[in-house]
Amino acid sequence: MSKLYFEDFTVGDVAEYGEKLVTAEEIKEFAAEFDPQPMHLDEEAAKKTLVGGLCASGWHSCCMMMKIVADGYLLNSSSMGAPGVEEIRWLAPIRPGDRLRVRTTILEKREPNSRPDFGFVRTRFEVLNTTGACVMFSITSLMFGRRTPRAAQ
Amino acid sequence: MSKLYFEDFTVGDVAEYGEKLVTAEEIKEFAAEFDPQPMHLDEEAAKKTLVGGLCASGWHSCCMMMKIVADGYLLNSSSMGAPGVEEIRWLAPIRPGDRLRVRTTILEKREPNSRPDFGFVRTRFEVLNTTGACVMFSITSLMFGRRTPRAAQ
Repeated sequence: MSKLYFEDFTVGDVAEYGEKLVTAEEIKEFAAEFDPQPMHLDEEAAKKTLVGGLCASGWHSCCMMMKIVADGYLLNSSSMGAPGVEEIRWLAPIRPGDRLRVRTTILEKREPNSRPDFGFVRTRFEVLNTTGACVMFSITSLMFGRRTPRAAQ
Repeated sequence: MSKLYFEDFTVGDVAEYGEKLVTAEEIKEFAAEFDPQPMHLDEEAAKKTLVGGLCASGWHSCCMMMKIVADGYLLNSSSMGAPGVEEIRWLAPIRPGDRLRVRTTILEKREPNSRPDFGFVRTRFEVLNTTGACVMFSITSLMFGRRTPRAAQ
């Protein structure tokens, strides 16, 4: 696949990437390092929490999403990162045994007046589990270099 | 310190937690697992990127923030997690050698009509580096159990 530049994204485009199998060991390892709350750290303790059983940290979910997206297309692109995230919603628990995919939808493209060499690609990222249910989404404007600098206006 | 419940948070309260020393090894390990972009993975490759040198993945920054906050007060609270994140802004690179702290500001408290047993504490989290500069912030509504269930209205 040829390397992706700003020009290669079209508003409305939808694509899917993955998959990634989630394991209890990974959930607990991540939790021990970054988010040691009972629902992410231990099966028995998790049963007594709001989510009723072991589930991935919301931040772990974001990180797994990032890896799927990186392998799926970002590493083969002119991506220059992102200045932040507009919104994240964790809609349902991610459990051991789930096989995650990421569906991307291109929402908007913006070309900053001050920089002819890149543009923002505002993207909705949905994480789907084995049944196809959307378990989280986020909206982010990623920066991509242009294949050809934009002419001065 | 006594365990924190919903009732113990006051709008306008500011607190600081940490610190956490960031190492190049951790930055690269995290990147290899979750965000293998050149600016997070390799010093030489990072010099050629927009950020001009090795820096932590934005998601790694979120995870380090989470761990500081967990150790700082969440694990000693009635926290029930969060349904998502309203906004994240990565304002400046987090570099090896930075010592991170997190400043929390309580923005708002909300008590859902349908649930007398918990409430939302909308909080601004700012990550400060060694010089005290704010390098990222996020805004999240965390759910905390109440010490005493709210009376029916």
